[in-house]
Amino acid sequence: MKIDFQLQMWIGCGNIKVSKILSYCNTKHLAVVPQGGNTGLVGGSVPVYDEVIISLASMDKIISFDKVNGILTCEAGCILQNLNSFLANEGFIMPLDLGAKGSCQIGGNVSTNAGGLRFIRYGSLHGNTLGLEVVLANGTVLNMLGTLRKDNTGYDLKHLFIGSEGSLGIVTKVSILTPAKLLSTNLAFLACQDYLSCQKLLLEAKKGLGEILSAFEFMDSHSIDMVLVHLEGIRNPLPLSLSKFYVLIETTGSDESHDKAKLEAFLLRSMEDGLVSDGVIAQDINQESMFWRIREGISEATVKAGPVYKYDLSLPVEKLYDIVEEMRLRLGEMAKVVGYGHLGDGNLHLNISATEYSDNIIAKIEPFVYEWTSMHRGSISAEHGLGLMKANKIHYSKTSETVQLMASIKKLLDPNCILNPYKVLPQSLLN
Amino acid sequence: MKIDFQLQMWIGCGNIKVSKILSYCNTKHLAVVPQGGNTGLVGGSVPVYDEVIISLASMDKIISFDKVNGILTCEAGCILQNLNSFLANEGFIMPLDLGAKGSCQIGGNVSTNAGGLRFIRYGSLHGNTLGLEVVLANGTVLNMLGTLRKDNTGYDLKHLFIGSEGSLGIVTKVSILTPAKLLSTNLAFLACQDYLSCQKLLLEAKKGLGEILSAFEFMDSHSIDMVLVHLEGIRNPLPLSLSKFYVLIETTGSDESHDKAKLEAFLLRSMEDGLVSDGVIAQDINQESMFWRIREGISEATVKAGPVYKYDLSLPVEKLYDIVEEMRLRLGEMAKVVGYGHLGDGNLHLNISATEYSDNIIAKIEPFVYEWTSMHRGSISAEHGLGLMKANKIHYSKTSETVQLMASIKKLLDPNCILNPYKVLPQSLLN
Repeated sequence: MKIDFQLQMWIGCGNIKVSKILSYCNTKHLAVVPQGGNTGLVGGSVPVYDEVIISLASMDKIISFDKVNGILTCEAGCILQNLNSFLANEGFIMPLDLGAKGSCQIGGNVSTNAGGLRFIRYGSLHGNTLGLEVVLANGTVLNMLGTLRKDNTGYDLKHLFIGSEGSLGIVTKVSILTPAKLLSTNLAFLACQDYLSCQKLLLEAKKGLGEILSAFEFMDSHSIDMVLVHLEGIRNPLPLSLSKFYVLIETTGSDESHDKAKLEAFLLRSMEDGLVSDGVIAQDINQESMFWRIREGISEATVKAGPVYKYDLSLPVEKLYDIVEEMRLRLGEMAKVVGYGHLGDGNLHLNISATEYSDNIIAKIEPFVYEWTSMHRGSISAEHGLGLMKANKIHYSKTSETVQLMASIKKLLDPNCILNPYKVLPQSLLN
Repeated sequence: MKIDFQLQMWIGCGNIKVSKILSYCNTKHLAVVPQGGNTGLVGGSVPVYDEVIISLASMDKIISFDKVNGILTCEAGCILQNLNSFLANEGFIMPLDLGAKGSCQIGGNVSTNAGGLRFIRYGSLHGNTLGLEVVLANGTVLNMLGTLRKDNTGYDLKHLFIGSEGSLGIVTKVSILTPAKLLSTNLAFLACQDYLSCQKLLLEAKKGLGEILSAFEFMDSHSIDMVLVHLEGIRNPLPLSLSKFYVLIETTGSDESHDKAKLEAFLLRSMEDGLVSDGVIAQDINQESMFWRIREGISEATVKAGPVYKYDLSLPVEKLYDIVEEMRLRLGEMAKVVGYGHLGDGNLHLNISATEYSDNIIAKIEPFVYEWTSMHRGSISAEHGLGLMKANKIHYSKTSETVQLMASIKKLLDPNCILNPYKVLPQSLLN
């Protein structure tokens, strides 16, 4: 597409510019794709045909930080890691953390309702986002940039934009509640013999570690193998263990000795009860990084291993690993099936590593994986949204009445369908 | 209004019945008022003219409880206290607690986005509600009753109904995340000489008590006087103290000795730093109840004292007490002005106790209180919604573009405006 001169003049930062661009594009029926980091898994921020790309990257100012309440207000293009560094100096942290932190932007995080590693402790962006400024398709700047923890005056419309993947409006400013930074962190790398033990361990961790539990991640032995084979400089912290499952438990608290005592007592009980077969607590920050590197490196390792099919599912915890085993049976020698994820949140990352991308393999995986998830009342996209790739699969996780209402709201807010077209909802509902 | 025979037949429980009633009322243009406890402050659940009242009280079944994930699914008419009792046996608690717990229903809690005492620790119902079943004005049953912590498949429409006071749909089922019950609780009743000390104490509590802080409530000396004069059997836990402010700090954790050590160290530091002038830690459950009775009894005491004007405001913490002092200056001898609330959430309850209800007093209070709150970017209704009494005051806390969009969404979901008319939004926008 040839961008006309007027549009070029507006390229730059500022909500007024976003407003002018959208107003212009809406009048001319030009489609736009907002980009808030472009780190997605489902093609939510890639143009499909000739859409105008609106990057928020230059809107990267911190507007204010309220130290008593821990409330940060900033522009949408601020990079997550930069916000975390800023807050660290003030004695606070962002309520979310994810692998893409070095490049993902807070506006993109909000627009995709990003989950990540601190979710089990601090909850979702629906709980932590206090206010938003959003530019609507027609250029209207919707100022909902409150900085209050409680505000029950009318419908809380900001939630419409959290997780709607830029298809209802473009987030330009964010105000977010940030927790105080607690100085004591402990990390344990544990082996469990079976999946039932992982589940029981989760329940015991919630009770025994209670207020200090800050991560409960699990990996099957296939995940660990992937990392050991394909990433350099990594060794198994439990080399003599031949367990089927590994769990990473992190605690975060305000008193080192209390936290250590709780964690040690918990591990002792878990070993006595047979839930944990082997384990080690990180002795220093290097060992902590190494343990995290194993968990965070799985995705990278599967990519290095060759063609990979990735699924991000939410399932009831007791059913969560069944799909991995069923998939392994279905695929046999055709592929390696790897299961890991945020067990504390019921979130499985299912990666299928093959020697080629082929219709034959896809036909073994889909629609089976979606039907199975739907049958067990799971979500076919826990963290990563629907984007381009899963827009037509929404009915596996949402009822037709609900999807219909989503389409009505899309048409109300963006009648010309200029915002991030072909994403989130089936096109057929918008014509 | 004479209810016709067909409508009477449907009176009873069940979402299908709610659906049939709404479908019928929608066709006949009959207005309805849903009641989920009827414990409100702003007339959100009272009929104004001849509306049909739909009580959810008989829909009071617990549908399921998932012990590993702590996820409760129940009908909307379940009473909050009953849910808490049920969960206590399972080792969990509801993420919210409020004075009306003995009669308020979870559907009403969700529809009003109730806040309350556990908010500082467990956050809002936008964060804790995992799924809803809602009946729309035309009778459509919208099944969004997911039980997953993470689900990014399309717009998260349940948030539209959280806090919309029954004006967009009637909540019939709720699924909610419940935290594990932690067994150690401590409660301190402290005196501070000035409001700045209260603020500093809050910041220190967030850092020093961190993960175990579960309530930070404040009361001015006028509030305490009200309780001591008008409620029976209550005495000041700090009789020799003549402080202007009192703070109630609660900790909840998993280890009694750790929690006590943290609280004692925190109090020692706070006394050394001069933030706290006097204080006492409850020695047993009776003393805990007595301390809470003082805080929770303020509202009741002001009602017993005579005519009272009540306001529920959110304000930036540093400005929060200024409005109380300004109001005291404005009213002079005409009334007693009492300020207390959830300081940890920036939520002030401003009660004005007078000898009569008079236009003269109202003219001194309003619109001043709303204008002042608006000027300081606060909320004119932190917890209690807008209901009937504040629907026309929404513009003090929301921009006209935002209110306009709320009205468009109301018209989309309830084109005949049968759901809870005259509430939440100005009537003028819906004609």
